Amino acid sequence: MYYQLVTQCVQGLRNLETWLEKAEQFASAKKFDIGVLLQGRLAPDQKPFIYQVQSACDYVKAGAAWLSGQSPPKHPDTEQTLDELRSRIKKTIEFAESVKEAQYARADERKVSVSWVPGKVIGGRDYLVQMTIPNTYFHLTTAYSILRHNGLDIGKMDFLGPMRFVDAN
Amino acid sequence: MYYQLVTQCVQGLRNLETWLEKAEQFASAKKFDIGVLLQGRLAPDQKPFIYQVQSACDYVKAGAAWLSGQSPPKHPDTEQTLDELRSRIKKTIEFAESVKEAQYARADERKVSVSWVPGKVIGGRDYLVQMTIPNTYFHLTTAYSILRHNGLDIGKMDFLGPMRFVDAN
Repeated sequence: MYYQLVTQCVQGLRNLETWLEKAEQFASAKKFDIGVLLQGRLAPDQKPFIYQVQSACDYVKAGAAWLSGQSPPKHPDTEQTLDELRSRIKKTIEFAESVKEAQYARADERKVSVSWVPGKVIGGRDYLVQMTIPNTYFHLTTAYSILRHNGLDIGKMDFLGPMRFVDAN
Repeated sequence: MYYQLVTQCVQGLRNLETWLEKAEQFASAKKFDIGVLLQGRLAPDQKPFIYQVQSACDYVKAGAAWLSGQSPPKHPDTEQTLDELRSRIKKTIEFAESVKEAQYARADERKVSVSWVPGKVIGGRDYLVQMTIPNTYFHLTTAYSILRHNGLDIGKMDFLGPMRFVDAN
């Protein structure tokens, strides 16, 4: 299930790409600088939109890497423009999709360490369930909420993206 | 992994209980009616905090129920006060925790239907990955963001709650 759960986080990044598309059209129609949205935040001591995107990307990248026994590629947080953010998302998706299902075979046995919990590790399954998934959705939802709060016309279906419904019979 | 993923969503509801605790203290210290936070929202056409809590509860409840072959218990959306919201969370947790790991054994084979996609069903695994998890974290994060936006002193660790780190050696 590792592969499917990481793949769904990647879908979240693809959904984010569609919000950026709408945000760009919105800024253009309303004649304001898109940078206002990219620097938007919900609280003065919370990080802005750009950071929320970078963080969502990083949790997906790190999950795909550590759970398949790789070190994550380095993506420095230098983005300032919409196009740079799009590139960040694109390279994250490309990396995550380069990890094939079979590479998660030993994910349960992995031990992952994070810089902010020195001297400790977390098992692969707990890392996915307690770290990758909650953090990815946290930052995606916060990015979504910043846009929504600023008047962008997006809704729950834009957040969820496509789902695999099939005919009942 | 179904059991562990639903259990982590339940942990999200427990984390939400701690934000409510802080929100109550904040309202008391600042001498404002907690109802202002409960009716708070991030956009005029987005649902308020109470609804975000009800929805997070419902996705956890429905996930635990359908994936274990049960119909979810009915919890009408009548909450207006902080205590009523706490009761809603409590009965959701009690139900979700009444479902034991073995009851998810056939979750992969389940077909789940939702009222807003008539004539269609979604497989148990897709339901968990594409519906239960993204929606639960979406509504939890939105609830969190409404409080954060209104000045409550909560941070990422309050969102994540406890994680199973162990000694590295």
